[in-house]
Amino acid sequence: MAVYTQVSAEEMAALLTRYENAGQLVSAKGIAEGVENSNYLVETDRNRFFLTLYEKRVDVADLPFFFALLDHLADAGNRVPRTIKDRDGVQLQTVAGRPACLIEFLSGVSVSHPTAAQARAVGGALGRMHAAVADFPGDRPNALGLAGWHALAEKCGGDLDQISPGLGQRVADELAYLDAHWPSDLPSAVIHADLFPDNVLMLGDTVTGLIDFYFACREIRAWDVAVTHTAWSFENDGAGYHADLGSALIAGYDDSFGLSDAERTALPVLARGACLRFLLTRAWDWLNTPADAVVNRKDPLAFLRRLETYAANPGLFAR
Amino acid sequence: MAVYTQVSAEEMAALLTRYENAGQLVSAKGIAEGVENSNYLVETDRNRFFLTLYEKRVDVADLPFFFALLDHLADAGNRVPRTIKDRDGVQLQTVAGRPACLIEFLSGVSVSHPTAAQARAVGGALGRMHAAVADFPGDRPNALGLAGWHALAEKCGGDLDQISPGLGQRVADELAYLDAHWPSDLPSAVIHADLFPDNVLMLGDTVTGLIDFYFACREIRAWDVAVTHTAWSFENDGAGYHADLGSALIAGYDDSFGLSDAERTALPVLARGACLRFLLTRAWDWLNTPADAVVNRKDPLAFLRRLETYAANPGLFAR
Repeated sequence: MAVYTQVSAEEMAALLTRYENAGQLVSAKGIAEGVENSNYLVETDRNRFFLTLYEKRVDVADLPFFFALLDHLADAGNRVPRTIKDRDGVQLQTVAGRPACLIEFLSGVSVSHPTAAQARAVGGALGRMHAAVADFPGDRPNALGLAGWHALAEKCGGDLDQISPGLGQRVADELAYLDAHWPSDLPSAVIHADLFPDNVLMLGDTVTGLIDFYFACREIRAWDVAVTHTAWSFENDGAGYHADLGSALIAGYDDSFGLSDAERTALPVLARGACLRFLLTRAWDWLNTPADAVVNRKDPLAFLRRLETYAANPGLFAR
Repeated sequence: MAVYTQVSAEEMAALLTRYENAGQLVSAKGIAEGVENSNYLVETDRNRFFLTLYEKRVDVADLPFFFALLDHLADAGNRVPRTIKDRDGVQLQTVAGRPACLIEFLSGVSVSHPTAAQARAVGGALGRMHAAVADFPGDRPNALGLAGWHALAEKCGGDLDQISPGLGQRVADELAYLDAHWPSDLPSAVIHADLFPDNVLMLGDTVTGLIDFYFACREIRAWDVAVTHTAWSFENDGAGYHADLGSALIAGYDDSFGLSDAERTALPVLARGACLRFLLTRAWDWLNTPADAVVNRKDPLAFLRRLETYAANPGLFAR
């Protein structure tokens, strides 16, 4: 959550000349957000843009997939930021030696304490996205699916107990549970896979943008609903399940797309998997980030708490 | 250069209601810039603002001085960001538990490779600022003047040689030189004291904003010219003095305000002091920032190189 690569005003101005009608540079501010990318809010005398420089966590080979997905979703009427093509139709640029892309600016703010109406709107936007990806031809495997969680748990190894005594065993038990219960017959699709409040722009109760698709991948489609449920229905520290938010989110999704009976039945297991995914990636970051780093470490146990809520309440998704 | 304190969209929206005509929140982005403050670029349906939260490096007791200075300069026609008063006329707010202020947004970008025309414009803007502060009643001592450099050198102590062998002795020699040659009879004024390209917004050759006054203090006025000369006339690494930039800067200052003969004569010594000030603060930060921190450590030796240039060329400021 910092600007890792500095872009000079001169380089920014030169970049803008590659685009038809981008206008003249008026302001450029490095933005402290995003998944370990460097982001600038760029203003010209005609428009505003984001300029994203892709840093270590994003594989350049995946960028055409992400760009095509954003274009496809925007063409289908979803509010996602379009990538901007230069005069030669090129999206992927090189800026300050990094792969980079000029991206449409969208208004809206990320809420920290969603209301039920906002959760319902997000469920609706997720469903519209799932409807739109049905004919999207792109594909990208999910490196953070069930197999990936096993690999990540193994990499963390005994260090998990440094975070909380017994965490290693709890993770092992949960992986065994998920291996035994993970659904194999649900429809897959290209999903967002990380639709936390940070990645949704809203004005009031209206979703004005879904952003940060850099975890998008092919996965069980209903898992995206589970991830979003996990992300929107709890306090940040994982305590306090807000049933009104969870129900509103699912209702919004049902309005715009809908869950099959089989998907609804699988949600408790999928939600446990969603919690384990974020528990493990946060645990890995926790173990590999100095405690005094400027980058905030996020508490892995916030997702253990969510996981235990789902495990203790298998009827949580019942109609 | 990061966002140290997170402000929720809900808190941002609530803050805006305190102001007349601020408008409704449309966008808020944490900005990765500034002197260890947290900054947000806040957009409403009516206007744009900066929201600054003051972190550890700024003394809250100094904020009324900074706010009054900005108001005074803006009233006198200088392009500086005004602080925004709420309905009760209050500038200093509390946001997310931190002292904070809503501040006017100014367009413009900070150049990385200034031209002579740009350096001349900056000299002009500095001179206009010096004209405007003549009747500013505020006052704040310079904690980073000659006495402060002695104190900082003592705090760094033998560790200076960890940065570069012999640096401790070089600093001691320079302090002795400055003690012997520092002018005592030049006019003082409230100065910016940190007018690096980062702190100047420009559009083309026009200065659209002087920002980041958080080092402003009472000091020998011509020292501000020396600091600005040091900041604008060298490559970032301190190698390569650009005489065209240095001359243009002084010419711009002469156009708008002007140096007395005594001030001009003192510039070589003042410039050495300016270099030592940034050498020492950077050295302190260098010795106290982990090498792998996200915050970029700035090389102290870039200012040793500038210092040696001034020391070796006492005629550098001659007409």
